Amino acid sequence: MVKIPIPDIVVSRLPLYLQMLQLMQLEGKLSASSKEMGKRLGISAAQIRKDLSQFGEFGKQGTGYSIPFLIDQLRDILNVKKTWDIILVGAGDLGHAIARYQGFTNRGFRVAMVFDSDSDKIGKKVGNCTVEDIVNLKQRVHESGIRVALLTVPSSSAQVVAELLVQAGVCAILNYAPIQLSLPPGIQVRNTDPILQLQHMTYYMAR
Amino acid sequence: MVKIPIPDIVVSRLPLYLQMLQLMQLEGKLSASSKEMGKRLGISAAQIRKDLSQFGEFGKQGTGYSIPFLIDQLRDILNVKKTWDIILVGAGDLGHAIARYQGFTNRGFRVAMVFDSDSDKIGKKVGNCTVEDIVNLKQRVHESGIRVALLTVPSSSAQVVAELLVQAGVCAILNYAPIQLSLPPGIQVRNTDPILQLQHMTYYMAR
Repeated sequence: MVKIPIPDIVVSRLPLYLQMLQLMQLEGKLSASSKEMGKRLGISAAQIRKDLSQFGEFGKQGTGYSIPFLIDQLRDILNVKKTWDIILVGAGDLGHAIARYQGFTNRGFRVAMVFDSDSDKIGKKVGNCTVEDIVNLKQRVHESGIRVALLTVPSSSAQVVAELLVQAGVCAILNYAPIQLSLPPGIQVRNTDPILQLQHMTYYMAR
Repeated sequence: MVKIPIPDIVVSRLPLYLQMLQLMQLEGKLSASSKEMGKRLGISAAQIRKDLSQFGEFGKQGTGYSIPFLIDQLRDILNVKKTWDIILVGAGDLGHAIARYQGFTNRGFRVAMVFDSDSDKIGKKVGNCTVEDIVNLKQRVHESGIRVALLTVPSSSAQVVAELLVQAGVCAILNYAPIQLSLPPGIQVRNTDPILQLQHMTYYMAR
């Protein structure tokens, strides 16, 4: 269906649409207008219609989108009809919080392995996983075939661990350390840093 | 200096530029070319020059940007020359991780108060704060004049707590619960949800 590359900024909004449609489905709704979606997300209805139209014809003028159908289509487009196993490296507070995070359920991801270098943590349970020794990371991840990782290690070790993950076959890393990773082309990296979002908000706040 | 509204997508990149320049400064560098910045961030040099030119004339053709000067300008533009006190609501694993997060240092923010409703948590230390009872949130936050909050409570209570925060004078909320908050116009809300970023990456991964 997709012929020409879709702008990344459009792609970045699709997970938001999916999240909101799943919430509306939980509320018992069956259809959604672009106007209602836009109001909830703070995006114009025209923008939503334009974004979705890049991927196909998902709704009829005047009747809104069928929520179950659009959820199904978005899950297909975002490649989350299957559940992706993910590696979590770093079993500190943040790692624990993520391993227990309820938001993963039914959204395409499952924490399947947890690694740390701290001997006090290795062997302990985190969520449904037992923390494994990071010295085995490369071999274990390679054997597992898992390609997505969450990095919750200190900044000082983030680059080294990210390189290990890439060597083991990981090609998508969500990085929680407040540094920019330098990795080969073709590796997807996203940074989660609360400061970036806070600074984005303070830009708009009265000086 | 800023006369016409700058597109939000441009604003959203400024914290990334600032983060990377501060990192380059730590590495001992004094100047940065848009080419080098672009290479590190995976953004074109032309895009960086265009983004920055919206705010003024920060560099000379051929010599690159002065890192200390550009950091100073970006801190001014993003309104983080002062340190913003922030409220943290929810003293679970995630709240603990955030309160101890090293990334806040020198980047414009400081966790100043922590609240929870769990009597086992109230009175305990989290980072440099003592957890306070959420029943006092509205009065305490109002008296403090703090306007920025991080929300790390369960989804089921996120909307109620967000409304309390807004009533107490908070106008910027970084929400970690995987739901969309519905708040009055003029309140800044950003959602931190690892699934949104993971789905953004899986879009690009082979099916």
